[in-house]
Amino acid sequence: MVSSYYAGEPEAPVLKTDIPGPKSQEHIAKLDKVFDTRSLNMLADYTKSFGNYIVDPDGNALLDVYAQIASIPLGYNNPALVKAAQSPEMVNAIINRPALGNFPSHDWAEILETGLLKVAPKGLNQVFTAMAGSDANETAYKAAFMWRRQRERGGPSVEFTEEEMESAMRNQSPGASQLSIMSFKTAFHGRLFGSLSTTRSKPIHKLDIPAFDWPQATFPQLKYPLEEHAEENAKAEADSLAEVEHLIKNYHIPPCAIIVEPIQSEGGDNHASPAFFRGLRALTKKHGVLLIVDEVQTGVGATGKFWAHDHWDLPDPPDMVTFSKKAQTAGYYFGNPELRPNKPYRQFNTWMGDPARAILFRAIIQEIERLNLVENTAKVGDYLFGKLEGLAKKYPGQFENLRGKNRGTFIAFDNPNRDEFLKKAKKFGINIGGSGANAVRLRPMLIFEKQHADLLLAALEKIVQS
Amino acid sequence: MVSSYYAGEPEAPVLKTDIPGPKSQEHIAKLDKVFDTRSLNMLADYTKSFGNYIVDPDGNALLDVYAQIASIPLGYNNPALVKAAQSPEMVNAIINRPALGNFPSHDWAEILETGLLKVAPKGLNQVFTAMAGSDANETAYKAAFMWRRQRERGGPSVEFTEEEMESAMRNQSPGASQLSIMSFKTAFHGRLFGSLSTTRSKPIHKLDIPAFDWPQATFPQLKYPLEEHAEENAKAEADSLAEVEHLIKNYHIPPCAIIVEPIQSEGGDNHASPAFFRGLRALTKKHGVLLIVDEVQTGVGATGKFWAHDHWDLPDPPDMVTFSKKAQTAGYYFGNPELRPNKPYRQFNTWMGDPARAILFRAIIQEIERLNLVENTAKVGDYLFGKLEGLAKKYPGQFENLRGKNRGTFIAFDNPNRDEFLKKAKKFGINIGGSGANAVRLRPMLIFEKQHADLLLAALEKIVQS
Repeated sequence: MVSSYYAGEPEAPVLKTDIPGPKSQEHIAKLDKVFDTRSLNMLADYTKSFGNYIVDPDGNALLDVYAQIASIPLGYNNPALVKAAQSPEMVNAIINRPALGNFPSHDWAEILETGLLKVAPKGLNQVFTAMAGSDANETAYKAAFMWRRQRERGGPSVEFTEEEMESAMRNQSPGASQLSIMSFKTAFHGRLFGSLSTTRSKPIHKLDIPAFDWPQATFPQLKYPLEEHAEENAKAEADSLAEVEHLIKNYHIPPCAIIVEPIQSEGGDNHASPAFFRGLRALTKKHGVLLIVDEVQTGVGATGKFWAHDHWDLPDPPDMVTFSKKAQTAGYYFGNPELRPNKPYRQFNTWMGDPARAILFRAIIQEIERLNLVENTAKVGDYLFGKLEGLAKKYPGQFENLRGKNRGTFIAFDNPNRDEFLKKAKKFGINIGGSGANAVRLRPMLIFEKQHADLLLAALEKIVQS
Repeated sequence: MVSSYYAGEPEAPVLKTDIPGPKSQEHIAKLDKVFDTRSLNMLADYTKSFGNYIVDPDGNALLDVYAQIASIPLGYNNPALVKAAQSPEMVNAIINRPALGNFPSHDWAEILETGLLKVAPKGLNQVFTAMAGSDANETAYKAAFMWRRQRERGGPSVEFTEEEMESAMRNQSPGASQLSIMSFKTAFHGRLFGSLSTTRSKPIHKLDIPAFDWPQATFPQLKYPLEEHAEENAKAEADSLAEVEHLIKNYHIPPCAIIVEPIQSEGGDNHASPAFFRGLRALTKKHGVLLIVDEVQTGVGATGKFWAHDHWDLPDPPDMVTFSKKAQTAGYYFGNPELRPNKPYRQFNTWMGDPARAILFRAIIQEIERLNLVENTAKVGDYLFGKLEGLAKKYPGQFENLRGKNRGTFIAFDNPNRDEFLKKAKKFGINIGGSGANAVRLRPMLIFEKQHADLLLAALEKIVQS
C-alpha cells in the first residue's frame, strides 16, 4: 500500500490524537503571539512528513490531498529533491542571491534551458521569472499594458512624449494608461493590487482594498454530468463569449488582455470546455487583445497534462502563461518578441525571481520525466474519477456536480456541509481542502497512486456515512 | 589588505580582460536568446566570488560596493552562511515549502523569535512575512486600508454590509475603499500596481502602467554640506511637512497611511533630518494616519544602526516597518494589534514568505551580532566619509553634494558624468552603482573594512583623474 516510487511512506494514515493534539496546541499558542494563526489548518512537522503523508507534532500522519494548497509536486522529503537541495549549486544559489536583471550568473541561461524552458508551453520560448503567483500575473499584466501602448504609439522605436512622462509621474493618463485587464467572475489571480483587481472569488479577499475599474465577464456555469446538459452548457459558453466580446468592444476602460484559469480553482473548481477556450483564443486574436492563461494552480501535471491548456488543442498558443505553486518558482512564459518591453528597466526588480527555486524546479522536472508522473496522474485520476462516480450514485447529494473527468486528479465535487466535511476528513486520516462556496477539491501530489486513491475513497465514504 | 573576518578574499581587484571579457560575452549571447539582457551590468561567477569581491567568468575580480543592489549583507560565499545553507533545517525548508498561513511548521514560532523578531524595530513585536520589497509594502498597504475602514465602521466586530460585499466584487466603493496611500516625490517603493502607484522615481518605472490616483508630497531637497545650509534646509523640511498636512486634510481620496524611506535610495540618495521624521510622526499621529517606514534598502545595518529609523529618536515607533534585500526575506513589522485584520483570510496568500529565507536571515543576524558588523559599518562609514570630504575638496565638481554623514557606509555623491563614472569604475576594479539622475551610491556590504575603503578611495581618485 506504500509508494511505489519512494521507500519510506506509512502504509496508511496514523491517528494518535485529536487534531490539534496537545503538542500542536502548545506550538500554536506560542505561534499565535507573533503570527496570525486564525487561518491555521493544522501544524506540521515537516521533518517527519514523507511522500503523500503530512505528519504533525503529535505523531498523526494524514494522507495529504491538499498538498500545501496544490503546491507540493513530489511529496514531502522527496529523496531526489533532498539531493538537489544539498548540491553545491543549491548552496551557492541560496547564499549568493543575485539581482538577476543586472548580475545574472554565468550558468543562468543553462539553468533556464535545462529547467523552466524545457517544459515551456508549446509556442512560448521565453520566460520572465517572478516570486509567486500574484507577481507572476502582475508582471504579465505590465507586459500587456506596455505592448498595447507601444502598438498604439506606432512601434517600439517611437519615443514617449513629454506629456506621457510628466503625467506618468502624477499617476495620470496618458502616461499611466487608461487600459484594463479583463477577468472572469469567480476567478482568482492573486491578492496584490493589480492581481486582486482581477480576482473575483470572494468578498473577504477584496473588502476595503482599492481596486481598478476593470471589466469582468461571466464564466460559464456548467451543469453536471456534462453529457446530460450538453445543450445548456454550450449555450452558457456561447453567452459568456458574447459577453466577453461585448466588453472588449464597449467597456469604458478598454481591456488590453484577458486572463483566465483553465479551471477556476479558488473560485470553486469551475470548468469550461476546450471549445470555449478555443473560442476565447479566436476572439482575443480577432480584437487584438492578449490572452493570458493563469496556470498557477493547474500547471505542472495535475490535470494529466503538463499544462492544463494542453487539453484545448489551440490553433495558436496563449500570449502568456503564468505559473507558480508546484513549480516552486514563478513567472510568465511568452513567445512574441514584441512582449519584451522596448527599453531596459521597464520590467525589472531587484531579485526578479530566485535561482535557488529555479534549480529546485529543474530537479522536479527531471523526476517527473524519469517516473512519468504526468502519465501516472492522468491514469490515477481516471481511476479515482470512476470510483467517485460510483460514490456519487451511492450517496445522492453528497458528491454533487462531480467534475474533473479526464483532468487527472484535479477533481472536485460539492457537498452541502462542506466545512464540516473537511473537518471530519481529518478524523479519518485525510487532509483535504475546499474551494468556492461548497466544493471539496482534490489536489493530491503527482506521486498519488491507485493505492492512495483507495485509501482516500474509503475515507470519503466513512465521512458521508458518519 | 584582505578581510579580517573571513579568510579567502583577494588582496585587491584583479583585472584580466575588459568587462565583459570573451567568456562573459559568450554566456551573454546565449542568455539573451531566452532572457532580457539589456539591463545586464556584468555577468558573475558566484562560485568564485568571495567576500567583498565579485568575480566574472573571465577571472576579473571587482571590489563590489553595489552588492546586488544593496542586497548582499555578509559577502559572497560567506562560510557561516554556507553552513546554514547546508544544514538539515535548510534542506527541509527548501524542499517542503509550506503554505504558512494554513500549515506552518512546528518550529515556525521559534524561527521567527530567534531570527526576524530578534531584530524587530523597537515597539514592533509582530511580523507578516512576504517575498520581496514590493509585496512587503503592498501587504502593509492592505493592512492600512483594512485598519482605517475598520475604524470608520466602528470596530472589529462590526460586520461588512451587503452593499460593501457586493460592490467589492465589482471593484467599486464602498467595498473597494476610496482611500489612498501618500508617498513622496522621488520615492521608490516597488513596481507592482499598488507599490508602483507610490513610486515616483523615474518615468521609465511607471510609463504605460495604470496607477491609482494617490497623493504625493515633496520630499525636502536638502543642500550640502548641511552645516552651511541649515536655515534653508529647515525651511525645506517645514514646507514639506506643511504640504503633507495639507494633502492629509484636502486630498480628494484621503490617505490612510504615509510611506517614507529613511533615505530615498533609488530616487537619488535623498536625505532628511531626524527632526523632519519626528515631525512626520507627530503629524500622522495627529491626523490618525499610519506611518509606514520602508527600510527595504536602508535596513539591516548599512546606515550604522540596524534600522535607519533608529537614528531618529522617535517618541512613538512607526506603525509598520517594511524590509527585504539584505534580510533575504521580506515583510512588515507592526506592534498595534489592531493592525491584525479582524478576520482570517483577509491578509493571506499561498506561501506568505519563505521559511528557507527566514532561516538564512537568522544566520545573517547571528553573524552580524558575533562580529559587531553594524558597529563596523558605522566606523568604516565615518572613515570613508571623512576621506571623501577630502576628495571633494581636491576635485571640485566631481564629488558634489556628498551625503550620508553618520549614516554608516550609506554614502552618495553627484557626478556630472555619472554613467561614464560608473563604467570607468570597472576599469579600476570597482563595481559600483548609481541612483537618481546623477548620484553615485555606495552600498558596500557590512564586512566592508578600512582596507577596502582605501582601495575604493584610490580607485575613485583614478576615475576622476582619468
